[in-house]
Amino acid sequence: MITSTLIFRQLFEARSSTYTYIIGCAATRKAAIIDPVLETVERDAKLISQLDLDLQLGLNTHVHADHVTGTAALAKIFPSMRSCLSDESGAKADRLLAHREKVKVGRLEMQCRHTPGHTNGCSSYVLDSEGLVFTGDALLFRGCGRTDFQQGDASRLYDSVWNEILSLPDNFSIFPGHDYNGHMSSSVREEKKFNPRLTLEKKKFIELMNNLKLDYPKQIDRALLANMKNGEM
Amino acid sequence: MITSTLIFRQLFEARSSTYTYIIGCAATRKAAIIDPVLETVERDAKLISQLDLDLQLGLNTHVHADHVTGTAALAKIFPSMRSCLSDESGAKADRLLAHREKVKVGRLEMQCRHTPGHTNGCSSYVLDSEGLVFTGDALLFRGCGRTDFQQGDASRLYDSVWNEILSLPDNFSIFPGHDYNGHMSSSVREEKKFNPRLTLEKKKFIELMNNLKLDYPKQIDRALLANMKNGEM
Ligand SMILES: [Fe+2]
Ligand SMILES: [Fe+2]
Repeated sequence: MITSTLIFRQLFEARSSTYTYIIGCAATRKAAIIDPVLETVERDAKLISQLDLDLQLGLNTHVHADHVTGTAALAKIFPSMRSCLSDESGAKADRLLAHREKVKVGRLEMQCRHTPGHTNGCSSYVLDSEGLVFTGDALLFRGCGRTDFQQGDASRLYDSVWNEILSLPDNFSIFPGHDYNGHMSSSVREEKKFNPRLTLEKKKFIELMNNLKLDYPKQIDRALLANMKNGEM
Repeated sequence: MITSTLIFRQLFEARSSTYTYIIGCAATRKAAIIDPVLETVERDAKLISQLDLDLQLGLNTHVHADHVTGTAALAKIFPSMRSCLSDESGAKADRLLAHREKVKVGRLEMQCRHTPGHTNGCSSYVLDSEGLVFTGDALLFRGCGRTDFQQGDASRLYDSVWNEILSLPDNFSIFPGHDYNGHMSSSVREEKKFNPRLTLEKKKFIELMNNLKLDYPKQIDRALLANMKNGEM
């Protein structure tokens, strides 16, 4: 959608069910991309160029275990792009962002909020002026990311989500890192009311998360190796 | 996204790569759904209820050949819902809409524009106040629907798209009926400039469309039989 201030696109990578986001400042044409996927870098670069945007930032919400980030490949196409990641991630990026640090995208300002729990280096990005938050795998539509590897910690995730995401105004839109059922966004109001996991008491939430018994992700070894080094393979 | 006037959701059905849209009036909670799919009716009904919306209209952009519409099933869940279709479709619906006829969704108003060519009964729905147009298969991201069955006609499609869709203001967002590469929306500006088919001269466009040699759609017999009768099976 295009508003007077924002150029916004959500994109989907089907193999890993990942959402990628393009956020552009309508006034200056400066832009950021959130969670690009290596396999769809060409698609995304083409769209960025056709939208006449100048890519400045490649924001990863965390060190992904299910796909290789597209940030290194995008930086080759857009040399002024800088990759960003939480400074708690322990991984490499051009900029390591502290909790509550702000990044500028032209006249737009996004705040990095550390939301650890799915991994120790997860962050969400808040675009306050437009009422949007990009939550990565910390908070999904009626769900949340798993907490059983990559220093995952259900207790920390519960606190992160309630203190840093669901404390935003009710009408904020939530754009997650993945969805597996065709849902593309949610809102703070809805997740506070209908998220079947996060509406549990903390003790019950931890119990649930520690007993999910999920399969080991298919791409994890390849993905982590690359993503710890900013997607360079 | 939620604005002060609009509650808006885009949803995806993966088997047929169909986009479904929920459009709600924030003031009155009245809502419409565009192109629901039978297989995802439960998902969509649940979301409509959780968003506290009162479903009034089930709009189909055309008689689909690739999936069975969810309108009949939704009308069982939301008895005040009325299905709508172009009055040129030759198919059954609660309301058959004339070219440029308007339908109300609470305080929002959508205009039905006949955009035949993919089928003879295609229509697009324009939500002028928000700068949105829902194009079904008439216009897709950098593409358009096929014209080789269901009274398809490349010449009519070309005229429909240019006269009824790409004549809208440049900054209007285009929400298509399908996408197969993870693109979710476009804009009038972009399609006027970058659509590889519609930017051709009319003669070249017709030639291209008449030589696509596409496979016969998998679900067409089941889908058309049901969709001609409003999705009743
Ligand atoms: Fe993840
Ligand atoms: Fe179609």
